[in-house]
Amino acid sequence: MDMAFLGELLTNVADRGRALIGMERFLGKGARSIDRLCEDLLSGRGEASGMALAQAVLEAWQRLDKPGRLAFFNLLKERFGPDSDKLDEAIERYRVAPDATAIAVLHLASEPRRQELLRRLNLAPEGTHVLVQMRAALFEAMEAEPELKAIDTDFRHLFGSWFNRGFLVLRRIDWRTPANVLEKIIRYEAVHEIQGWDDLRRRLEPADRRCFAFFHPQLVDEPLIFVEVALTTAIPRSIDELLEPERKVLPAQQATTAVFYSISNCQEGLRGISFGNFLIKQVAEDLKRELPGLDTFVTLSPVPGFASWLTGVTAEPGDFHLTNEERSELGRSAGETISLDDAARAGRDRLLGQMAAQYLLRARAASGHVVDPVARFHLGNGARLERINVGGNLSARGLRESHGVMVNYRYDLDDIETNHEAFATRNTVVASSAVRKLLRPANP
Amino acid sequence: MDMAFLGELLTNVADRGRALIGMERFLGKGARSIDRLCEDLLSGRGEASGMALAQAVLEAWQRLDKPGRLAFFNLLKERFGPDSDKLDEAIERYRVAPDATAIAVLHLASEPRRQELLRRLNLAPEGTHVLVQMRAALFEAMEAEPELKAIDTDFRHLFGSWFNRGFLVLRRIDWRTPANVLEKIIRYEAVHEIQGWDDLRRRLEPADRRCFAFFHPQLVDEPLIFVEVALTTAIPRSIDELLEPERKVLPAQQATTAVFYSISNCQEGLRGISFGNFLIKQVAEDLKRELPGLDTFVTLSPVPGFASWLTGVTAEPGDFHLTNEERSELGRSAGETISLDDAARAGRDRLLGQMAAQYLLRARAASGHVVDPVARFHLGNGARLERINVGGNLSARGLRESHGVMVNYRYDLDDIETNHEAFATRNTVVASSAVRKLLRPANP
Amino acid sequence: MDMAFLGELLTNVADRGRALIGMERFLGKGARSIDRLCEDLLSGRGEASGMALAQAVLEAWQRLDKPGRLAFFNLLKERFGPDSDKLDEAIERYRVAPDATAIAVLHLASEPRRQELLRRLNLAPEGTHVLVQMRAALFEAMEAEPELKAIDTDFRHLFGSWFNRGFLVLRRIDWRTPANVLEKIIRYEAVHEIQGWDDLRRRLEPADRRCFAFFHPQLVDEPLIFVEVALTTAIPRSIDELLEPERKVLPAQQATTAVFYSISNCQEGLRGISFGNFLIKQVAEDLKRELPGLDTFVTLSPVPGFASWLTGVTAEPGDFHLTNEERSELGRSAGETISLDDAARAGRDRLLGQMAAQYLLRARAASGHVVDPVARFHLGNGARLERINVGGNLSARGLRESHGVMVNYRYDLDDIETNHEAFATRNTVVASSAVRKLLRPANP
Amino acid sequence: MDMAFLGELLTNVADRGRALIGMERFLGKGARSIDRLCEDLLSGRGEASGMALAQAVLEAWQRLDKPGRLAFFNLLKERFGPDSDKLDEAIERYRVAPDATAIAVLHLASEPRRQELLRRLNLAPEGTHVLVQMRAALFEAMEAEPELKAIDTDFRHLFGSWFNRGFLVLRRIDWRTPANVLEKIIRYEAVHEIQGWDDLRRRLEPADRRCFAFFHPQLVDEPLIFVEVALTTAIPRSIDELLEPERKVLPAQQATTAVFYSISNCQEGLRGISFGNFLIKQVAEDLKRELPGLDTFVTLSPVPGFASWLTGVTAEPGDFHLTNEERSELGRSAGETISLDDAARAGRDRLLGQMAAQYLLRARAASGHVVDPVARFHLGNGARLERINVGGNLSARGLRESHGVMVNYRYDLDDIETNHEAFATRNTVVASSAVRKLLRPANP
Repeated sequence: MDMAFLGELLTNVADRGRALIGMERFLGKGARSIDRLCEDLLSGRGEASGMALAQAVLEAWQRLDKPGRLAFFNLLKERFGPDSDKLDEAIERYRVAPDATAIAVLHLASEPRRQELLRRLNLAPEGTHVLVQMRAALFEAMEAEPELKAIDTDFRHLFGSWFNRGFLVLRRIDWRTPANVLEKIIRYEAVHEIQGWDDLRRRLEPADRRCFAFFHPQLVDEPLIFVEVALTTAIPRSIDELLEPERKVLPAQQATTAVFYSISNCQEGLRGISFGNFLIKQVAEDLKRELPGLDTFVTLSPVPGFASWLTGVTAEPGDFHLTNEERSELGRSAGETISLDDAARAGRDRLLGQMAAQYLLRARAASGHVVDPVARFHLGNGARLERINVGGNLSARGLRESHGVMVNYRYDLDDIETNHEAFATRNTVVASSAVRKLLRPANP
Repeated sequence: MDMAFLGELLTNVADRGRALIGMERFLGKGARSIDRLCEDLLSGRGEASGMALAQAVLEAWQRLDKPGRLAFFNLLKERFGPDSDKLDEAIERYRVAPDATAIAVLHLASEPRRQELLRRLNLAPEGTHVLVQMRAALFEAMEAEPELKAIDTDFRHLFGSWFNRGFLVLRRIDWRTPANVLEKIIRYEAVHEIQGWDDLRRRLEPADRRCFAFFHPQLVDEPLIFVEVALTTAIPRSIDELLEPERKVLPAQQATTAVFYSISNCQEGLRGISFGNFLIKQVAEDLKRELPGLDTFVTLSPVPGFASWLTGVTAEPGDFHLTNEERSELGRSAGETISLDDAARAGRDRLLGQMAAQYLLRARAASGHVVDPVARFHLGNGARLERINVGGNLSARGLRESHGVMVNYRYDLDDIETNHEAFATRNTVVASSAVRKLLRPANP
Repeated sequence: MDMAFLGELLTNVADRGRALIGMERFLGKGARSIDRLCEDLLSGRGEASGMALAQAVLEAWQRLDKPGRLAFFNLLKERFGPDSDKLDEAIERYRVAPDATAIAVLHLASEPRRQELLRRLNLAPEGTHVLVQMRAALFEAMEAEPELKAIDTDFRHLFGSWFNRGFLVLRRIDWRTPANVLEKIIRYEAVHEIQGWDDLRRRLEPADRRCFAFFHPQLVDEPLIFVEVALTTAIPRSIDELLEPERKVLPAQQATTAVFYSISNCQEGLRGISFGNFLIKQVAEDLKRELPGLDTFVTLSPVPGFASWLTGVTAEPGDFHLTNEERSELGRSAGETISLDDAARAGRDRLLGQMAAQYLLRARAASGHVVDPVARFHLGNGARLERINVGGNLSARGLRESHGVMVNYRYDLDDIETNHEAFATRNTVVASSAVRKLLRPANP
Repeated sequence: MDMAFLGELLTNVADRGRALIGMERFLGKGARSIDRLCEDLLSGRGEASGMALAQAVLEAWQRLDKPGRLAFFNLLKERFGPDSDKLDEAIERYRVAPDATAIAVLHLASEPRRQELLRRLNLAPEGTHVLVQMRAALFEAMEAEPELKAIDTDFRHLFGSWFNRGFLVLRRIDWRTPANVLEKIIRYEAVHEIQGWDDLRRRLEPADRRCFAFFHPQLVDEPLIFVEVALTTAIPRSIDELLEPERKVLPAQQATTAVFYSISNCQEGLRGISFGNFLIKQVAEDLKRELPGLDTFVTLSPVPGFASWLTGVTAEPGDFHLTNEERSELGRSAGETISLDDAARAGRDRLLGQMAAQYLLRARAASGHVVDPVARFHLGNGARLERINVGGNLSARGLRESHGVMVNYRYDLDDIETNHEAFATRNTVVASSAVRKLLRPANP
C-alpha cells in the first residue's frame, strides 16, 4: 500500500514544471549572460532564487550551438575550478598534520566549484534530464579538446551519486507499457535491431518473452538500460531460433531457462555509470521468484572482436599451429562459404569454434585484459563461459564481426562471487569443460 | 499521465526488499565481521554481490549497541580514509603542474574510501533509510569524540547530493493522508505541539488550513520537513487566534493571507541539509496558483533567543538607556505580571516591543551574526521583519523563551532576492517601518 | 501493470465534480421545482442536459427537511409509477399469447418510471453517494408510512445491480490507509467498539492482525463492510484474549488459524444488499494465499438472542427438563454470580453451555428459522458451529445479551457447499460433535 | 489525493483473477452441464460458491461453438423466463387492487430468471467482459432466430444499469497511453481509418490534437467509445486539411476551435447503450476548462446516406424542380468528374450543396424521422447544422457515400437544450442561415 502513497507523492514531480510560472520576475528584465547566471547561482542568490536561476542557465545552455557549448565547457574548466589559495592552504595544513580533519579540508578545497554548480542546476524542473544531455554534449566536445576530460570527472562523480543503484527501479516493459517508453526501446535496442511495432510486440507480448529496464525517479519516461529475455527449455544456439516469428510460444510455467539475448544502454550521458551487472542479476532473481521452474540463466551474446582478432592472427604465420589450409579457410569471406559442401562446412565450423575458444580464453590485450568487451563484461560480473555456438548469428553484422559465432555466458548465482574473484584477481576466464576442450594444444 | 507510469514504476521500490530472499547464499555460512564485510563491499566482490554485502553490513550495524557504533565510526575514520601514498603523489603532481587534470586527480585521491563505502551501502534495500539513521547515531558519537566530525563531512557531502532539492517532492498532507505519515506529523511538530488526532485533524481538514511536506522517493513514509499554514484575511497577532478550536472556518477562496505558523524538520540524520527555504517559497507559489486571491505570505514565528538575551541586557546597567524601573519591569517573571492593571500592562507591552525590535534589528553575536536563529533563517531566505506581536504566545514555553512575543516575517516574492542580498552581504535586517519605529533612539 | 493505467483512469472520477462548473446555464435563471426537474430529467431534455438536471435534483433533495423528504418519496410513489394504460395493454397481450416477447413487454411496462429516474440521477457527480443516503432516508420515512416500501423495491433492485459483487473491490485496511477511511472504521465498528486511534492501531498494525473491507469504485472513501481478523495458533475462547493490549504479537508466518472476530456493515442505505458472505470467503482465500500455514478459519461470534430466549425458556416450566435449581441458576443476574465459588461457577458454566447448544441447534422461530441472526448468517454461508465458549465475552453487553457466551463458526472451504445445502434445504444446523454432545437428551 | 487511494483500491481488481486458484474444489470432480451449473448458480448454492459456479458457466460458454451458443440462448429463453404461476397470481392481484405494491409484485414476477442469472454470472473474474461478448454473440444468433430478441431485452436492461453514465470515466488517450489500449484505438477507428502506429502518433501527439475515451472500471483496457479532436483557428472544410501529415502544428493555447472529427464505438456488445452524447459534451467542457481560448465546438462529420438518397431522387423526375441537366450531372460517377473544367465543377459543387441541404433539412424517412443517421445523432444531442462542405472528403468511401460532402455540426452549450427540444418535439432541424439559404425554393 505504500506504493499508492508513493505513486501519488510522485505525481507532483510532473507538476513541478508549472511551479515556475511567473518566476521570471526573479531574473529581472535584462537577461544576464550565462556565466553571470552561473556565478549568481553559486552565490547567496542561489539560496534565494535558485530554481529560477537554474532554469535560466539550463534554458540558455540548450539554446547554445556547438561552438557555444564548447565555450561553456571551457568556462566550466577555467572559471569554476577550486579556489587555489584555499587549496594551497589545505595542502599545507595536510603536510603539517595529515589527520582526518586535514584530509576532509583538503578534499573539500580540491572540489571544483562546478560540482556545486551542477548540483544547483539540478534545482531546475527537468534539471537532471538536461544535465544528462549536457554530459553527452561534453563527450562530443572532448573529441575536439581532450583536456575537457577534467570536467567529466565532476559529472561522473555527481552522476555516480545520483544514479546510485539504490535509487534505480527495475520495471517490466510489456505490451501495456506507455507507447512513449516503448518507442525508446525500439530506438535504443543496440544488439538485434527491432523492426518496428510488430517486431517489438513479438518481443514483449508472448508468454515466453520478458523485457526489463532500470528507471530513475527523476527520468520518468527514460529507460536507462534494458534487457530482453527469452524463456526456453534449453540453452539456445542461435539468435534466429529465439526471434523466429512463427515459433511456438512456450507457456512460461514450462520454461527451465532464461536467456538474456540483448542488453542495451539508452543514455549516452550516463556512459560509464554502470548498471548492467545489477540489471542481469536482479532480473534473474525476479524471474526465479515468479517462475520457480527456472534453473538456468544464460546469455546469448555476440563476440564483437572475434573477426578482427582472427584477421590479425591469420596474418601472422606461426601462431596457434594453424596449417596453411586452415589459415586460408579462415581468410574466406562469408560470401565465399556459400558453396561449401557439408563436410567442408563442418570442418570450417570446427575450426571457427576452436579459434573462438582460443580468442575468448587466451587472447589478451597489451594491458593484459581479455580482448573481447562483451566477455569482459559478463566474466567481470561472475558469469562463466558456457558454450560457443558457431553459426549463431548469420546476419550481415554477425558474419562481419564474428564469422557468425555467438556465445552463452552462464549466471549461476551460487558461483558468481567465486567466478568474479578468479577473473578479477587472477585474470582467469572460468569456462565449461566443453569450451576448454575446444582449445588446441599449446604445444602439439 | 506520466504519473501513472511513474507511480507504477515506483511500486517496485517497495518490492525490492523481497529481492534479497535467498541471497544469503552469497555470504557463505560463517558470518564475516563487519569490517571484513565493508572491505569486501569496497573490493571487486561488491560488483558481484553488492546488494547482499550491503544488506549484511547494515543489518550488522543495526544490531550494534552504542559502544559498538562508536567503534564502527572509529573504524570508518581510521581504516577508510584515502590512500596516503596516492594522495601524496597527487599533491606532488599538483605542485608541479596545477592544471585541471591535476586538481581532478587530487580531489579524487583525497576522497576518503568511506565515501564510496557509503554509496555502496545504499545498495541494500532500505539503505538510504538506515544511512540517515547512521548519521543521527554519528551525531551522538560526536558528542563523545568530536574528532569524528571528519566522518560527518562525508555523510554530509553524500546527503547533499542525494537529497538535492531537485529530487524532493512537495506533497500536501491532509486528512486523506495515510495514518502512518500523519502520526509522524504529530510526533515531529516542534513548534506548537499537536495534542493527538483530534488536534491534528483541526490543523489539516478545515478549508482554511493547509500542510505541506517534502518527501524523497527513497524515504516514502518519511516526511523530511513540513510546514503548517493557516489561510486568513489578515496578518495574525497571536498563535491562539489561529489554533482556537471554535474559530469560524474561512472559505479558502476568501483568504488573502497565508500564514506559515509552524515549520518542523523530521529527520535528525539530515541536520544541516537544508530544504526549509525551498519549502516556504514553493508552498507560497503553489498556494498562489490554487488561490489567486492570496496576496500576503507571512510567518507567525517564535523569537526563541529573546528572553535569555534580555536577561543578559538587564543584568548590565547602561545598555539601551533603560531606566531602573524598566530594568526591573523586564526582570519580572510571567507569574508576577498577572496582577498588573491595564495601564501597567500596556506600558510593559510597549517596553517589550521596543526591546524585541532592539533584539532583532541590532543584537549581534560575537561572530557578527544576528543572534536569533529563527530570524537568521527567514531573513537569510529573503523575508523581511514585518511586525512584532507582544502577547503572541502566552503558553508556558512562549513566556519562558520570549516573554510571549511572536513575530511576522513577510515573504514578498518580488523582494526576496534584494532582501536576501542586503542581509547576506551587508548584514542588514530588512524590516517594516513599523518595526523600525520601535527602536529606541541610540543616543537620547 | 494494468493497475497503473486503471488507477490513473480513475483519477478522473474525483475530478468529475468540477466538470459541472458553469453548467448552471442549462437550468435557466428561475429555479424549477423538484418535481418539474424530475420530469425534465426523464424527458428528452435528460438526454441534452442530464448531468446538470440530475445535480439540480439531488441538490434540491439534500436541502429538503424531513417532511419535505417524505413528500418527495410520496411524489415518487404517486407520480412516477408505470403508465397504467401501457401496463393494461401489456397484460392483455400476455393473456392472449404468453410468449417471451409478451413477458418482456409486460416486465418493461410494469417498471415504475422512478427506476429510470434513479438511474438518471446517478449522472450527477457523487450521484451514487447521494442515492445511497436517499435510501437511508427512505427507511426512516417508511417507519411513518410503511406503504413507501414499494419505493424501496426500486432502490433495492437498482442497488442490487450497481453493487453487484463483481464490481466490489476487496482492500486491506492497515496503518497506511488514509485517515479519512480509518475514522470510518472507528465509527462503524458495531461488534467490539474501537476506543480511538490507539485502539484502532492495535487492531491494524501488529503482524498478527488484519482488516479487510469491500469498496465500490463510485464510493471511494466509503468502506461498505469490513471484517477484522486475528491470526493465532489456536481457536480462541474469548474476545479478551484477542484484544488484550499487552498480548505477545505472533509472527504472521507462524499462525495456523485466522479468526474473524468482527464484521460490520457501514452503509445503512445498502441494508439488505448483502456482501458479508463473499467477504469472509474471499478474505479466507486471500489469507491462505499469503500465509500457506493457515489451515483453520473460524469466527469468534456473539450470540445476540441467547439471553432473551433463555428468559422465555426459564419462564415456562417443563421445557428442556430443567430442574428448579437450574431454572433459578439461569435466572441470576450477572452481578449475582460474582460471589459464586469455583464449583458453583463450573456448574453454572456447564449449564449455560448446554442451554446455548440447545438454543443454537434446536431453537426455531415461528417461521421455522433458526432464531439467532448471527447463526443464520454464518450457517447460511456454509459454516459449521464449531464450539461454544462460556465466558467468551464478559463485557456488560456480552453478559446482557448472551450471559457471556460466544461461539466459533468454522469455515472449511471444502465443506461450505454441503453445509449450506443442509441448512438451506433441510434446516439442519451442522455442528461439531463437541457441540452436539452438549445437548441434553430430549427424553431423559 | 483520493485518487491514490482509489488507484490502489483498484489494484485488487487485476488480482481478482487469481482469487479462484484452487476453487475448482467447489465444483466437484465430474463436470456438471452448463444448464445444471446455471440452475445451481440461481439456487442457494450460488450463495455458497457463486464465484466458482459463475466462472464455470462462463468458461463452459466460451468453449461453445456457434450452434452451442444458439442452444444456450434458447435455453435462456425457454428455461429461464419468469415463473408463470407467480406471474398469473401477480396479474390477478394487480387487477383486484392496482396499487404501488401490486405493481412492484407484478414487476418482480415478470422479471425473467435469466436477469438474476446474468447478475450472478458477473461474480466471475472478468465476468463483465465475457457478458459483453455474450451479447455480441447474441446479436449474431438473433439474425438466425429473431425471437431471441426477448433475451436481449434482459441484457440491455442490465447493461443499462451497469454502464450507467455515472460510472464511466473519461480519460485522455495520448502517446503515453499503454500500447495495448492504443492498438484498440487503431482497430476500432470507424470513420477515418488509422494507417498504423505512425499515423496514430500524428493523431495523438501534436499539441493541436486530442483524443478522449470513456472507460468502465470493470473493463480496464477496453475503451467503450472514443472521439478524436483537432484544435484549429477556424471551422475546417475538409478532412484532408486536418489529417495532412505535413501541416504546421498549432500551439494549443492559440486554438479557438475544437473539431470532433471522428467518434467510434468499440464494443459491439454494448450496442444501443449510448454514451456518445455525453462524450462530446463532457470533452467540450473539459477542453474549455483547459483552454479557455476555445469558443467554437464543431464536428466534421460524414453524410453517409446522401448518395443513396440522391440516387432515389434523381430517378424520379419532378422532385425538387431539378432540370434534366442537373439530374444528369448528379448521376455522374466520381470518375467522370475528373475532366470537368472549373466552371462546370463550380456548378456541380453548387448543385451538390443545394441537394445536401435538401437532404439534411427536408428528407424524412417513412417513420417521419430525419434520414441521415449521423444527423439524427448530433441534432438529437442539441447540435445545430452549421455548414455543408462540398469536397470535404474525397476518399473513395467519401465519394461513394456522399459525393465527397461533409458537414459541420456545432455544439453551442447555451443552445443545446433548446435545439434538442426543437428537434425532439417538433422534428425541426436547427441550421445556420447559410445552410438554410442553400435550400431551393419549394415552388419556383
